[in-house]
Amino acid sequence: MKKPLILVTNDDGITAPGIRALVEVASKLGEVVVVAPDSPQSGMGHAITVSAPIRLHPVEVFEGITAYECSGTPADCVKLGRHVVLKGRRPDLCVSGINHGSNASINIIYSGTMSAAMEASLEGIPSIGFSLLDYSHNASFAASKAFIRQIMEWVLTNGMETGSLLNVNIPNLPADEIKGLKVCRQADARWVEEFTEAVDPRGQKYYWLTGRFVNDDKGEDTDISALEKGFISIVPSMHDLTNYRAMGGLKGLEAS
Amino acid sequence: MKKPLILVTNDDGITAPGIRALVEVASKLGEVVVVAPDSPQSGMGHAITVSAPIRLHPVEVFEGITAYECSGTPADCVKLGRHVVLKGRRPDLCVSGINHGSNASINIIYSGTMSAAMEASLEGIPSIGFSLLDYSHNASFAASKAFIRQIMEWVLTNGMETGSLLNVNIPNLPADEIKGLKVCRQADARWVEEFTEAVDPRGQKYYWLTGRFVNDDKGEDTDISALEKGFISIVPSMHDLTNYRAMGGLKGLEAS
Repeated sequence: MKKPLILVTNDDGITAPGIRALVEVASKLGEVVVVAPDSPQSGMGHAITVSAPIRLHPVEVFEGITAYECSGTPADCVKLGRHVVLKGRRPDLCVSGINHGSNASINIIYSGTMSAAMEASLEGIPSIGFSLLDYSHNASFAASKAFIRQIMEWVLTNGMETGSLLNVNIPNLPADEIKGLKVCRQADARWVEEFTEAVDPRGQKYYWLTGRFVNDDKGEDTDISALEKGFISIVPSMHDLTNYRAMGGLKGLEAS
Repeated sequence: MKKPLILVTNDDGITAPGIRALVEVASKLGEVVVVAPDSPQSGMGHAITVSAPIRLHPVEVFEGITAYECSGTPADCVKLGRHVVLKGRRPDLCVSGINHGSNASINIIYSGTMSAAMEASLEGIPSIGFSLLDYSHNASFAASKAFIRQIMEWVLTNGMETGSLLNVNIPNLPADEIKGLKVCRQADARWVEEFTEAVDPRGQKYYWLTGRFVNDDKGEDTDISALEKGFISIVPSMHDLTNYRAMGGLKGLEAS
């Protein structure tokens, strides 16, 4: 059987420990090609670079593995990976991460990791974004690897609905304390903003974004609930943002 | 009756003709406060600025209207508008645009205009993103204004489901050729990428993103279909990206 082709990317940049862990797992399951940002891109959401040139360079970062660093966003990396690096070759799977920090709940809309996975899904490529609930650069990905391999193998065997992607978040626990995998919906939580206001060395005022994550969604079927109980959360996600339930209520606007 | 408070933003930047047209309409309906990017931010998706300071300056751009330019993304503008400029005051409505170019269908996920509207909706503020199907800087917004006013008035009167937002796209037609308003779902279309490869003046290779919009979704109930027929499309949208239909098929993964 031909080895599957796996495109790997992330948003923390090609030198982040998280992508190294993901490449290690992926290279046991297939032929790996890496196209990742040359610098951290957290909080980039689904940004794409339309008004500037993008650079792409082959790099030797992972032994024996084809890898490119890209000056663009995570979504750019997937576009360039698919159409420039791989040319006509179609990946069997795209994996993004392992992100240093949670992308559960509303974080999916701010996440470069998940936007890369969504970009691949738009091309009909099964795709998964992986995130570990540890924001530190020195996060340990050891416990995550066996679970990530399990999920990747399952998707390679069973495929995925076209246009769908998986948002996988892993609690920051030792392997033997992780309870298993749980398929969930996205919790309806949000960030409550707080800005730090300060003055720079040249006397100019600036703001720096901080925030508190607030979850008022007490459903037992959410990703946040699963993570709190020690499960790995798996949310099947998609790019159709239509709020179908709200359509009826707008009929009056149509007739207005 | 107290005048409603309307927060106005966009992604083409505070000097774009589109936001000027939107401010004109909004100022007839309520008290307007503008917080918009100091430079064009197209294609920024739902990016937020987390690893750099953000600047915010009051500017005199619209006569008699409080306005700030912001160095951040459209989503940053809404966050800063809400929490720094307006402090405790809660807008009754947030409007974003008028975007120079379509945000119908899959464009919503790449759109700074729509990310600003979504950011407001996350705070429970009724919000609307407006886009005109004309990419040029000198686009004429004259025909759009009466329709935009109608939609804003309807939302101010009838409110909107919490967490919902409207993605409004306007065909590039004279007012008397616009057929009316249609509530639609997001067409399942996509961009097929093409990269221009070239060499810069210093001899380095670069890529520039281009693409072709391809719509294989032939549904009569989509935004693309409505626009093609000369209607203004209104897609109620939301931030829950869960693909509920795909959950059942993943139960095997949970048990694997």
